[in-house]
Amino acid sequence: MTNISFSMPMSEPGFQRKLGTVCIFGTGDFGRSLGLRLLQAGYGVVFGSRNPKNSSLLPKGAQVMSHEEAAQTSRIIFVAVHRENYDFLQQAGGEMLAGKVLVDVSNNLRRNQYPESNAEHLSKLVPAASVVKAFNTVSAWALQSGGLDANRQVLICGDNSEAKQMVVDIARSLGLTALDKGSLRAAGEIEDYPLQLFPLWRLPIALATGLTAFIFFYVLTLDVIYAAVIDGEDISFRIMVSLANKVFPIVSLIMLALCYLPGAMAGFLQLYNGTKYRRFPDWLDRWMLCRKQLGLIALALASLHVLYTLIIPFRYYVRYRVNIWTAAQIKQNKTGTFDTTMAWRTDSYYSVGILGFGLYVLLGITSLPSVSNTINWREFRFIQSKLGHLTLFLCTLHTFLYGWDKFLRPSAYKWYLPPGYMLSLVVPCVVLVLKFVLITPCVDRAVTRIRQGWERKPAGSLANGDPKGRRLLVL
Amino acid sequence: MTNISFSMPMSEPGFQRKLGTVCIFGTGDFGRSLGLRLLQAGYGVVFGSRNPKNSSLLPKGAQVMSHEEAAQTSRIIFVAVHRENYDFLQQAGGEMLAGKVLVDVSNNLRRNQYPESNAEHLSKLVPAASVVKAFNTVSAWALQSGGLDANRQVLICGDNSEAKQMVVDIARSLGLTALDKGSLRAAGEIEDYPLQLFPLWRLPIALATGLTAFIFFYVLTLDVIYAAVIDGEDISFRIMVSLANKVFPIVSLIMLALCYLPGAMAGFLQLYNGTKYRRFPDWLDRWMLCRKQLGLIALALASLHVLYTLIIPFRYYVRYRVNIWTAAQIKQNKTGTFDTTMAWRTDSYYSVGILGFGLYVLLGITSLPSVSNTINWREFRFIQSKLGHLTLFLCTLHTFLYGWDKFLRPSAYKWYLPPGYMLSLVVPCVVLVLKFVLITPCVDRAVTRIRQGWERKPAGSLANGDPKGRRLLVL
Amino acid sequence: MTNISFSMPMSEPGFQRKLGTVCIFGTGDFGRSLGLRLLQAGYGVVFGSRNPKNSSLLPKGAQVMSHEEAAQTSRIIFVAVHRENYDFLQQAGGEMLAGKVLVDVSNNLRRNQYPESNAEHLSKLVPAASVVKAFNTVSAWALQSGGLDANRQVLICGDNSEAKQMVVDIARSLGLTALDKGSLRAAGEIEDYPLQLFPLWRLPIALATGLTAFIFFYVLTLDVIYAAVIDGEDISFRIMVSLANKVFPIVSLIMLALCYLPGAMAGFLQLYNGTKYRRFPDWLDRWMLCRKQLGLIALALASLHVLYTLIIPFRYYVRYRVNIWTAAQIKQNKTGTFDTTMAWRTDSYYSVGILGFGLYVLLGITSLPSVSNTINWREFRFIQSKLGHLTLFLCTLHTFLYGWDKFLRPSAYKWYLPPGYMLSLVVPCVVLVLKFVLITPCVDRAVTRIRQGWERKPAGSLANGDPKGRRLLVL
Repeated sequence: MTNISFSMPMSEPGFQRKLGTVCIFGTGDFGRSLGLRLLQAGYGVVFGSRNPKNSSLLPKGAQVMSHEEAAQTSRIIFVAVHRENYDFLQQAGGEMLAGKVLVDVSNNLRRNQYPESNAEHLSKLVPAASVVKAFNTVSAWALQSGGLDANRQVLICGDNSEAKQMVVDIARSLGLTALDKGSLRAAGEIEDYPLQLFPLWRLPIALATGLTAFIFFYVLTLDVIYAAVIDGEDISFRIMVSLANKVFPIVSLIMLALCYLPGAMAGFLQLYNGTKYRRFPDWLDRWMLCRKQLGLIALALASLHVLYTLIIPFRYYVRYRVNIWTAAQIKQNKTGTFDTTMAWRTDSYYSVGILGFGLYVLLGITSLPSVSNTINWREFRFIQSKLGHLTLFLCTLHTFLYGWDKFLRPSAYKWYLPPGYMLSLVVPCVVLVLKFVLITPCVDRAVTRIRQGWERKPAGSLANGDPKGRRLLVL
Repeated sequence: MTNISFSMPMSEPGFQRKLGTVCIFGTGDFGRSLGLRLLQAGYGVVFGSRNPKNSSLLPKGAQVMSHEEAAQTSRIIFVAVHRENYDFLQQAGGEMLAGKVLVDVSNNLRRNQYPESNAEHLSKLVPAASVVKAFNTVSAWALQSGGLDANRQVLICGDNSEAKQMVVDIARSLGLTALDKGSLRAAGEIEDYPLQLFPLWRLPIALATGLTAFIFFYVLTLDVIYAAVIDGEDISFRIMVSLANKVFPIVSLIMLALCYLPGAMAGFLQLYNGTKYRRFPDWLDRWMLCRKQLGLIALALASLHVLYTLIIPFRYYVRYRVNIWTAAQIKQNKTGTFDTTMAWRTDSYYSVGILGFGLYVLLGITSLPSVSNTINWREFRFIQSKLGHLTLFLCTLHTFLYGWDKFLRPSAYKWYLPPGYMLSLVVPCVVLVLKFVLITPCVDRAVTRIRQGWERKPAGSLANGDPKGRRLLVL
Repeated sequence: MTNISFSMPMSEPGFQRKLGTVCIFGTGDFGRSLGLRLLQAGYGVVFGSRNPKNSSLLPKGAQVMSHEEAAQTSRIIFVAVHRENYDFLQQAGGEMLAGKVLVDVSNNLRRNQYPESNAEHLSKLVPAASVVKAFNTVSAWALQSGGLDANRQVLICGDNSEAKQMVVDIARSLGLTALDKGSLRAAGEIEDYPLQLFPLWRLPIALATGLTAFIFFYVLTLDVIYAAVIDGEDISFRIMVSLANKVFPIVSLIMLALCYLPGAMAGFLQLYNGTKYRRFPDWLDRWMLCRKQLGLIALALASLHVLYTLIIPFRYYVRYRVNIWTAAQIKQNKTGTFDTTMAWRTDSYYSVGILGFGLYVLLGITSLPSVSNTINWREFRFIQSKLGHLTLFLCTLHTFLYGWDKFLRPSAYKWYLPPGYMLSLVVPCVVLVLKFVLITPCVDRAVTRIRQGWERKPAGSLANGDPKGRRLLVL
């Protein structure tokens, strides 16, 4: 392994590596796709099959044998068989599989289909072998297509670290990324992974749905129901566009603010604790982990608000009202005086809204994985924190300019309730005030010191600290 | 190779690996860029040159020698020379290159420039060496820039698997992804790859162009030509915006439906065959493979439709018409009554369109490689299938609301032809009906069983099956 | 290491690799995160700590010892300690660290905080060890989260190539990408990397800001100040929307043209030099390297222009003017004749603008890293060069259609100055003319020959050539 003359053929270190043979039990979709990919990567592939003579679908270059024969060709065996058919492994287990590495690639149809994970079940059936759970997160299709467009992460767990390393090496040879998740007890979690449906999005979507429903009924009450009860007018047609265009921006602004609230709260908590090594409460942790999702939903709603606003001029209702109004003015021979304040105010309102939305979209683009991948931590923080708070400020200002002095007029408070847009201002104002306090020089200095590791209390208090370095998540 | 005490320097397994020396023939752009990158990765680099003394451009740290001397320093030689200059290799071949691994990195200027691939040609010239085709898909620029923004996939083929593995190892050391494409016969295909121009987009773009041309002439006939012939009016100015804004949404809706039609057809075909292991007809396969492209073109056209719609209010023609109409109304002292049905209908029409377009954009975003990379198969299917069909439903509903009861009025059928938007409804309705049948409980159960591997006929019929697991492509 | 029968358990080459033990000095955020990830990847981890008994936060499975004991367990030691605390290493250095590989992962708070880089400082303190600078570009958070969304590139430098290789292997085992930056002298540059704030964007942003300021004051003068001085009218409210909607498209068009100007200049320079091997002047190089950023800023401004345009119909000022005008027309009983030329011109103006913007967005999407990653060089050049110039042509045409025949009217030249949009046409027209010359058959043939390596002068002139293959950057 020391320095050898580089001119000697066949013996350079770093160059020579002969890939071994891999055995696959099962000739279904996944087994065949995996075999093809292994062959392409330079491995030898031997399929084990109940019926070796009737396997015409296998990739060219692979051998097919009985399970017993196949098992003898390789130390590593991929078990590409449904869990219901694991029994034959138990019967043959004693001699055939002793000392082998069995890779369980199986998936279930739904969560908690079986009391214990497939891999742990397999391990009990064949205790003489080392079972590794892997490759279940990769689809047969991803294996074939070269994995360009699909998830390329192979989650791996198992009790024998040498066996795991063999599987890691194979995954890497196939151009996949391996991630070790620990002992075989993690198999259940890995088996649940392909059955997940946007787990990080659940809380933000639930929140968005709840807020949307609440705000919808609130503005429905103040607009449609109030008009029906007090004026006896049916303006329910306003639900489709006018009300939607009130609900979406209100929920969007609240959610954008909720995206930045936990960061401010974490800052104050660190100030209060006098250390960054005290663990945040669980709810705050969970909240901070879904900020990206909160922000993206807020962006989607803001985009809808933009579209709903831009169609205003050609709505039938708007055209009708404009016509009536024009006709009335002409009849009364009024020309109307031009109100410069009004022009400044409305134009500022539009302009601030557009700039805010532009920054909003920029935040969305930088949260695309391939973009956030190319920027360093300082750049990421600059965009998501500095530009993020600027976005929140502009959108809040946009709402204030919309309201202008209406909050002073009693007629704006139907049934003594504030109009919807006022509700949307509460959380953003709280966030902006908190943030403003945090960036005043003296507070900022204290927070920065704490985030760099300084502690007010002695180090002995570390015992209840947080080993996950959450400081970095506080934008 | 067994457990060694970890405290012994220089002998830990997994830590020590000395990279060898690599030889490069040719000192052009590509050779120099490759040399620089190899040096950065820790390899020794020796250039072989006709004129070793006149090579001042080479990266620092590389040596330069005559071809003969250079060849002796390494077992692996990158031939970064134009095919026209391969002859000198033949002359020196016997002694100098016997047993060497020659990596052919060459590209041609156009397809079929030579009857046989460059790599196969090289292999014939120097039969004593093992030729590997590789690295031609990576540009000199990508090698220098660290490959962040460029294609990092190295396609590799060759007849000697050990030689290929050496090249795979080098590719990985440079941070590139290696993909083995088989024997040297694949070299032609690999050499064609950099000459490709969006092969997967050809069919969808041709389809979009054809459909656009057809629909354009159809609406041109019914709008402009009809007006010229029947009313003697010249409304050809309508081509630029009004007609464009009919053609784009019509083609977009048809293409979105064409994106989901093959999936439905595949489902019925599997039901009819009673197995998923029967190969689909070739045309259906090809169709299914370009669904993503069909959908993205449909999205582009839908976006144009949105922009063309939003500029309506400030078009000269529209302003003129509004003015005329307002003036006429005022003269006749009509006020017009407010039609609540009309308000509901038009507002619903806009609202459904906006929501449909919002989902459309969401589908587009999730088809970005870096996004689809982070979601699992179930999530991908949820978005592309469930949300995709919902998008199609909303866009179809949008078109129905646009038409409303016009299809009942004979005046809508100029020259007995249906207006353009009616044409656009045919394919979407077919797809939605087929999909509706497929998700009725009893049919859905049968399809699900088949996709999980169940077969109506005995397993003996597998002989004509499909080894590529196309089930997974049926969204 | 030669061919062993594959059926022998535990000895297949390519399968068996036992990962060693890694030592980490320091139990802060980064040390703990790194330790956790190393454990997950299968390494043994030993922490060295001043106070081994008080380290309850460490990841499960790691050992913690005194620095002296820990150092004996591994040849490689990560120094996850602030530079200010490096002194203890010097004291213990002689015996404890001789022959070890010390990995300096430290970062500074600001550039030029210390006269020499931390890694070089460490190397002087402990001359008996091999110092490698690495992992400072990866955040603790990225290490924990599996690196999906964060920068995964590990920049490495050091004077001992074997030591570097050990670090490269560890980085790869953690799923990170290693990039060798050369000797330890590069450490300063690597330490500056996490402190960078969009270095490639500085020049384009400065340019955009300067241009925006200049154009703003130019149109402010011609619109608002001219009206105030000559007509005594206060139209300053126009700043918020009308002026913004003049400034943004003007700057956007100029920047799009500046994005394609250096390519055309490089083409002519190559023609003049008669070779592609002559280095471009430095300013041209720098310009060409920030074309992507120029283009993206231009796209952002164009998007703002679109939004500012689409809100026109519901601006208070516009509604007021329309009302006045309608009333005046009705009073005078004018109907106004429909001007077909006007309809054609304005509709073409909108249509060309929309198509140009559509292509613009397409260019932006293909410059996303994950998209440009999946296309080959020819496809990239097709989009960025062919479609790029088409975009520039459409946007220039859009501006010409906006101006129409106004340039003939003296009234358009207030204070003898051309209106803003005319300024924006200068650079685009220059670029389009240059490009048009370059694609005429005879010039194109000459440029193509040069870019394929042909030289007018003898090869001896290579001495002042460019080793970086800039040909490939000339779109």
